[in-house]
Amino acid sequence: MSKMISGFSKLSKEEKIDWLAANYFTNQPEIIQTIKQYWNVDEKLQQLHDDFIENTISNFYMPYGIAPNFVINGREYVVPMVVEESSVVAAASKVAKYWSTRGGFKTQVIATKKIGQVHFLFAGDTSNLEKYFQENKTELFAATAAITKNMEKRGGGILDIELVNKTDKLANYYQLHVTFETKDSMGANFINSCLEAIAKKFENDDIEIIMSILSNYVPECLVRAEVSCKVSELGGENPEKFAHKFEQAVKIAEIEPYRAVTHNKGIMNGIDAVVLATGNDFRAIEAGAHAYASRNGNYASLTHCEVKEGVFKFWIEIPLALGTVGGLTALHPMAKLSLDMMQKPSARVLMQIIAAAGLAQNFAALRALTTKGIQHGHMKMHLMNILNQHHASNEEKETVAKYFENRTVSHSAVVEKLNSLRKPAVNWIDFENQKLVKETLLQLSADAKPKFGSMNGQQMIEHLSAVTQIANGNWKVDTFVSDEKAARRKPFLNTENELQIGFKAPFLAEAPADLKFNSMQEAINDLLIQIDEFFKVFTEDKNRKVVHPFFGELNFDEWKKFQIKHFTHHFKQFGLV
Amino acid sequence: MSKMISGFSKLSKEEKIDWLAANYFTNQPEIIQTIKQYWNVDEKLQQLHDDFIENTISNFYMPYGIAPNFVINGREYVVPMVVEESSVVAAASKVAKYWSTRGGFKTQVIATKKIGQVHFLFAGDTSNLEKYFQENKTELFAATAAITKNMEKRGGGILDIELVNKTDKLANYYQLHVTFETKDSMGANFINSCLEAIAKKFENDDIEIIMSILSNYVPECLVRAEVSCKVSELGGENPEKFAHKFEQAVKIAEIEPYRAVTHNKGIMNGIDAVVLATGNDFRAIEAGAHAYASRNGNYASLTHCEVKEGVFKFWIEIPLALGTVGGLTALHPMAKLSLDMMQKPSARVLMQIIAAAGLAQNFAALRALTTKGIQHGHMKMHLMNILNQHHASNEEKETVAKYFENRTVSHSAVVEKLNSLRKPAVNWIDFENQKLVKETLLQLSADAKPKFGSMNGQQMIEHLSAVTQIANGNWKVDTFVSDEKAARRKPFLNTENELQIGFKAPFLAEAPADLKFNSMQEAINDLLIQIDEFFKVFTEDKNRKVVHPFFGELNFDEWKKFQIKHFTHHFKQFGLV
Repeated sequence: MSKMISGFSKLSKEEKIDWLAANYFTNQPEIIQTIKQYWNVDEKLQQLHDDFIENTISNFYMPYGIAPNFVINGREYVVPMVVEESSVVAAASKVAKYWSTRGGFKTQVIATKKIGQVHFLFAGDTSNLEKYFQENKTELFAATAAITKNMEKRGGGILDIELVNKTDKLANYYQLHVTFETKDSMGANFINSCLEAIAKKFENDDIEIIMSILSNYVPECLVRAEVSCKVSELGGENPEKFAHKFEQAVKIAEIEPYRAVTHNKGIMNGIDAVVLATGNDFRAIEAGAHAYASRNGNYASLTHCEVKEGVFKFWIEIPLALGTVGGLTALHPMAKLSLDMMQKPSARVLMQIIAAAGLAQNFAALRALTTKGIQHGHMKMHLMNILNQHHASNEEKETVAKYFENRTVSHSAVVEKLNSLRKPAVNWIDFENQKLVKETLLQLSADAKPKFGSMNGQQMIEHLSAVTQIANGNWKVDTFVSDEKAARRKPFLNTENELQIGFKAPFLAEAPADLKFNSMQEAINDLLIQIDEFFKVFTEDKNRKVVHPFFGELNFDEWKKFQIKHFTHHFKQFGLV
Repeated sequence: MSKMISGFSKLSKEEKIDWLAANYFTNQPEIIQTIKQYWNVDEKLQQLHDDFIENTISNFYMPYGIAPNFVINGREYVVPMVVEESSVVAAASKVAKYWSTRGGFKTQVIATKKIGQVHFLFAGDTSNLEKYFQENKTELFAATAAITKNMEKRGGGILDIELVNKTDKLANYYQLHVTFETKDSMGANFINSCLEAIAKKFENDDIEIIMSILSNYVPECLVRAEVSCKVSELGGENPEKFAHKFEQAVKIAEIEPYRAVTHNKGIMNGIDAVVLATGNDFRAIEAGAHAYASRNGNYASLTHCEVKEGVFKFWIEIPLALGTVGGLTALHPMAKLSLDMMQKPSARVLMQIIAAAGLAQNFAALRALTTKGIQHGHMKMHLMNILNQHHASNEEKETVAKYFENRTVSHSAVVEKLNSLRKPAVNWIDFENQKLVKETLLQLSADAKPKFGSMNGQQMIEHLSAVTQIANGNWKVDTFVSDEKAARRKPFLNTENELQIGFKAPFLAEAPADLKFNSMQEAINDLLIQIDEFFKVFTEDKNRKVVHPFFGELNFDEWKKFQIKHFTHHFKQFGLV
């Protein structure tokens, strides 16, 4: 069945959802329930949000957090942050507080110029084009009168129009490079409308307009934020060492692109969170910031650090083209709330707050990276997310959190720990205890069905014997385990974890091997003989090492650990433990 | 009062909101109401979202839309998009449908390698470091065993560890450059945990670890998406011309950074929308993509176009490090819904879908830019946003939308049109009609109070006379109006708009001028004489032009238009119309 559809945008929201559920989901009522669960109960408010874009079916919740204690140019702010990544708001809050007692953030707007271009082709004589441009420049301004009127009242407008020759880069390619001041509006629509009006006026039979569009590269819409204090006031155990490592970390980001990209990504965590919270366009901010970071030909850090004469100084310079009027800023009630929270800042003030948020975020990241490592703090939140995902109880959360206080958090380690809390302890099979092994296996019939896998009772016993024979040197298995793989796999043997159900070593055939013995009794006897042999060969040669086809070269102790896991695994397979 | 606070993170959500409202808002009940209006009615669901980050007080709604009709490698998709910018989803849907009948999107994953680095300083002999590294390389792998175990089960893990000498860039600076395969997880936590374990093992008295961290620069985690068809199949009035202009537009973005930044920003509109919808980290994707765009030393386009032998081909290559397991992907119910909607794609499949969404977005932007201009489509949505902002009725929306079908949409123009619908028509004062002027003004007392401004009745009449005398050449005002300003201001005279209340020409003194005449009667007589004179001087010299101190040089016709507006303005000031 084809899922292509015509006239989709004209369907009602309900019809769109029904189509979606019918064509792309099997659990339709449940899906529709999820989508509608996120609708606002206030229909009118929901309608407002639905109208922001097209084909809206629901709302995507982004967490809305606040970071208090920002002191910027002596004034206190609480900064709204919209971000789905844990640690960002916590980092901002901590760093804001830290610097609030060390002079706060000092910020300044360097420039607020915005840029747009009319791109066109002209095949004639450049001097003719220049003449035509000069003669018509006033008319180009005039063409935007209806559009610029209100912007001029607010003190903005078109600053200049220049003709740029780019024919050295692309045949016949020129630009009208237009600079703008857009005051408190981001100005995208204003700039584009002006450019289109200019292009329309400028076009003639010899000029082919390709396109007219603002640039998100705004190196002259620039803001700076800085923190500084005496090194001795940085606090901590060894402030000199901290300052040194911090400075090195910044210097690395200044010269190493692989690091710079992530360094700046961290800055953008803080920047975008406030950009989103105020209804601004984060794609525009991202593009402008990263292009600025690459302006010298090498992608580099947006922040800089200097430790000189006992003073630590850390600052950012970043282009930020923002609006505090127009767009979603007033339309989205939570964006409006964000601006109100910051005392209705002008675009210039918002630039400074956001630059401070970016600098704070970078400070937090570098402080963590150069001291405890990034994972320490991050993992605390990550841990909670994993626990929530697995519906952990409060008691489980507490136990697991305590367990991981001094351990490395990984998704698998957390799940394992959680599972270990939930399941009864393992009864390991002491395979050295021949009496136990024998008596237990005698309960089993030759054709007993396993709980998992495809072996029957006797096949399992012969399999245990066969693997023991590898250790004994009686069965040569043609496998190769690289040093790296072995190094990574071996530590498992020292854990309390069981071999996983369904695990199958690569050297084993798909189907169980043919039976070697005529009865269970014979098979069991053989296994006991091999166990005897196992202890004999390793006791005779203390340095004996034999390659295990999955874990690589193992010594006596390691083989024993493997055997315990392996026997336990197969005893469980038949419900014998 | 200081707004600094300690222990903020430990307050309950309600307490946080109360603190915020009390410290940063005056309209407290209203603010608290807004914040809570966005809470989900399902408390448990809200708790889940609150736990994603720190200091959460509410949800920020991002519109969740869907774009149907994507055909990627022959398979049909509906693509979920989370974005606050209008036109993005509409563009994706349109372009998806367009290419669905022209072979659809062809995509392929080029590589999926991820990168992390341990950055360290070593002041000794490089050869000793190399020896130490080689001797311990296996141990470095082994150090990550507990972390890599589960990743290896899924076919991922550490691919290689290399020692990199960067001492030419920064004194004593080296890296362990580690490559990873993380399969369906984005892998940030996995990579960082591995790196920290490696660093801990690697560190010794001569090696100072500065930091260990993944890189978001992933030029080898790369995907390609392409569309192509015969030029003749592109459709439209002139497919050859379209293909030519489109190709030129891409070539411009390949060589001009100002354009490339916005070109790529448009691509990211599509990319980020799906990245957000699937619970992935858009800052990571943004940083990686823009750094990749600058990899050759000049920031350049991520897409490319070729028109050759009658075939149009358009493609993108972009690094995308994504996850379809872990993080928010399963935790955020709407992110999970997004993945389910796309039939639970692997990370490799998601890379391809997202690359297609980015390419679609760029195609839509370039098609609009090189034909009707970007504003045409964009403004339709912008218009609706402005109308909603001003609570327009459905009837008003219809009228205004129709009015702007062939006009330039700007915020001010829309508001003006809307206001014109809402207010009664203006009764313009025909200042040439001396009888009317005289009789109307005689109703006024000399000390009548104005509705706005600071002039009294007689001062206003003398003011009208004075300004008329400028036109008549009897009052020389020392002002300069640049050609550009004049060109932009003059078109106002041709509109139906009134002079704004509170407007004051810059050449006027702050306080009203002293009275020239002893009575109202004398002042009115003088005004009538000046009006006579006005028509006389302009009739005698048809080419006469006189500089108006705000609008610049005006001819007879333009001066008349100004006079009508000016008289009307001041008659209104005293309720005379």
